[in-house]
Amino acid sequence: MNQQVVRRFWLFWAVFGLYAGALAQPPGGPVVVSPQVNADNTVTFRLLAPGAKDVKLNAQFEKAPVAMTKDAQGVWSVTTAPVKPDMYPYSFVVDGISVADPKNSAIFPNEGFQNSVVEINGSTPLVHSLRNVPHGTVSYRYYTSPELGQRPVVVYTPPGYETDTKTTYPVLYLLHGTTDVEETWTKVGRANIILDNLIAQGKAKPMVIVMPYGRAYPTISKSSGSLRNWDNLQAFKKDFMGNLFPFVEKNYRVKKDKDSRAIAGFSGGGGETLYLGLNNPDLFSWVCGFAPGMLKEEFDRNNATAFANPTQTNQRLKLFWIGVGKEDGLYPIINDYLKVLDEKKIKHETLISEGGHTWMNCKLYLSTIAQKLFQ
Amino acid sequence: MNQQVVRRFWLFWAVFGLYAGALAQPPGGPVVVSPQVNADNTVTFRLLAPGAKDVKLNAQFEKAPVAMTKDAQGVWSVTTAPVKPDMYPYSFVVDGISVADPKNSAIFPNEGFQNSVVEINGSTPLVHSLRNVPHGTVSYRYYTSPELGQRPVVVYTPPGYETDTKTTYPVLYLLHGTTDVEETWTKVGRANIILDNLIAQGKAKPMVIVMPYGRAYPTISKSSGSLRNWDNLQAFKKDFMGNLFPFVEKNYRVKKDKDSRAIAGFSGGGGETLYLGLNNPDLFSWVCGFAPGMLKEEFDRNNATAFANPTQTNQRLKLFWIGVGKEDGLYPIINDYLKVLDEKKIKHETLISEGGHTWMNCKLYLSTIAQKLFQ
Repeated sequence: MNQQVVRRFWLFWAVFGLYAGALAQPPGGPVVVSPQVNADNTVTFRLLAPGAKDVKLNAQFEKAPVAMTKDAQGVWSVTTAPVKPDMYPYSFVVDGISVADPKNSAIFPNEGFQNSVVEINGSTPLVHSLRNVPHGTVSYRYYTSPELGQRPVVVYTPPGYETDTKTTYPVLYLLHGTTDVEETWTKVGRANIILDNLIAQGKAKPMVIVMPYGRAYPTISKSSGSLRNWDNLQAFKKDFMGNLFPFVEKNYRVKKDKDSRAIAGFSGGGGETLYLGLNNPDLFSWVCGFAPGMLKEEFDRNNATAFANPTQTNQRLKLFWIGVGKEDGLYPIINDYLKVLDEKKIKHETLISEGGHTWMNCKLYLSTIAQKLFQ
Repeated sequence: MNQQVVRRFWLFWAVFGLYAGALAQPPGGPVVVSPQVNADNTVTFRLLAPGAKDVKLNAQFEKAPVAMTKDAQGVWSVTTAPVKPDMYPYSFVVDGISVADPKNSAIFPNEGFQNSVVEINGSTPLVHSLRNVPHGTVSYRYYTSPELGQRPVVVYTPPGYETDTKTTYPVLYLLHGTTDVEETWTKVGRANIILDNLIAQGKAKPMVIVMPYGRAYPTISKSSGSLRNWDNLQAFKKDFMGNLFPFVEKNYRVKKDKDSRAIAGFSGGGGETLYLGLNNPDLFSWVCGFAPGMLKEEFDRNNATAFANPTQTNQRLKLFWIGVGKEDGLYPIINDYLKVLDEKKIKHETLISEGGHTWMNCKLYLSTIAQKLFQ
């Protein structure tokens, strides 16, 4: 190598090495592409881990972790069977430690674990596939809580919101699950893309979607368990009613009647949804639980107002909707809950789907209710 | 345990296990909090990895990886010495594999490696500290490229943008480094918070900041190396000029004269910045390179227009600014470049800082130039 080439080589590694210092893999190693979605809907996953003894793929389209094999350069890989088109969380299990895919910037935002996300589009666009249609805006905002400080919230405004400045919109409050954060509904649930597509097809009304952070941190510790725990529920309710709700009504062109307000949520956020939604019939006419977390003793707590006068409840609620997968661990208790609703003659719609407690089902549930809300 | 307690126990683990299935750690394990920033500015990092043989902390405030120790429950931990307040990328190195902190939802968005981010605030708020001041909006948008499809861009609009609907604003195009993505400048560079604070203090003009994705993917592969590589530079320029620029001018209330347009970028995006900024003096009067990536043979390429008529260049440019750290691998070549600028009598300002090729320096550089732009 002549001097210039030597210098360039040195410079490249000096800079790359400094920048990617935390990568802890040898410079000059093999180029690793992962995930690689193939034309036949198989997926090739790769991880450079020359020192690892055992690497598995843990993907939510597989029933169990799948062994990966190492090549001479230390790259572990596996190519799956054809995968049903959808968007799935996955991770690698390296000698027992779960890690996200370092080559994939599509991350599952979460404060309890690290997953990556892979999208298999197939030949027909899905309801959550990014397409060339008018797109809404996803805004990251802060509002102020006297107790909790600066609180993050993600807000979807539909296509045309910025230009149709006389139009007001109905609003959906959409809550994430336990250990998720305010951007999980867009990044893993694709709420914005689902609405873009359904609005473009005339199947959903243009609406604003408000996605707050469901944990009353720092009052409630991030390691304090379910969002449904009583202390979090109380602190979150206070923040929701006292700070978030006024922030939204002041800063967004949302309609201010209860028939133009919906609340929905997944898992622990589904528990929050039933508690806030059913006990505040003056605020919300549309209440949707996506595999809502609950224990039997919460039935009355969540439904105190609704159970007190079923006739009035049925008149007030435009939609009370519950979705759950048959393989979800919550399926038995949600079934018990649905029986109680029948006994009490509380009107409700259900979607009992395939699958488990997953974000694949969340996308299905959101795309289902989005076509019912405000219609 | 009575039947109800048994049932609740089973339900909890069924649901939690399904949801956090990819976590690959035993249910019922210890509660792990990480990172924990202590009152004396030390930080305790923890990782549950009972099967690991060696775990180190790789943090950008340390000169080298630091050993962590395992307790009886399999939790590895280390408490650092007091850390200079700032926001730093870090990872854990588990038996040679770099992993982000699974308990920390603050992720470094990147397509080449995985890091987490920890913030040590200290007793005095820093320029990037989230404070109770009016906040701008960070919007995630898509624009359409005929060649590249739906392209992501993150846009900061200053406090009051939504309500002062007659006001137009100057605009800064802000480019990330190689392997970064469109949200790295907000999530690791805190561009929005820095501007919120400087605007609140009257030190920066309210401005719009446009943060595009700097790789012309899928035309250019994600594994094709630096953003400055010629093919990417050409495809990115085409997208920037043909699609992004018209999208911004159409959809945002930005001033449309060159004196109201700035371009800045870090590392590979700094190379893109010099190439686009200096060769298009009709578009940008403010050009800032943050440790801009370059090779000697790029000097002329980036500066062809500027070098052709230094007097005119100096008249046209309101600011030509270069920042670099003394420990940056690019420091020698940027020094060579600055000498050429002196020889050619091209006016420029410099900030030669401490530190290396880091996002700590990026925050310093952005907060420095934000107080000069459009003044």
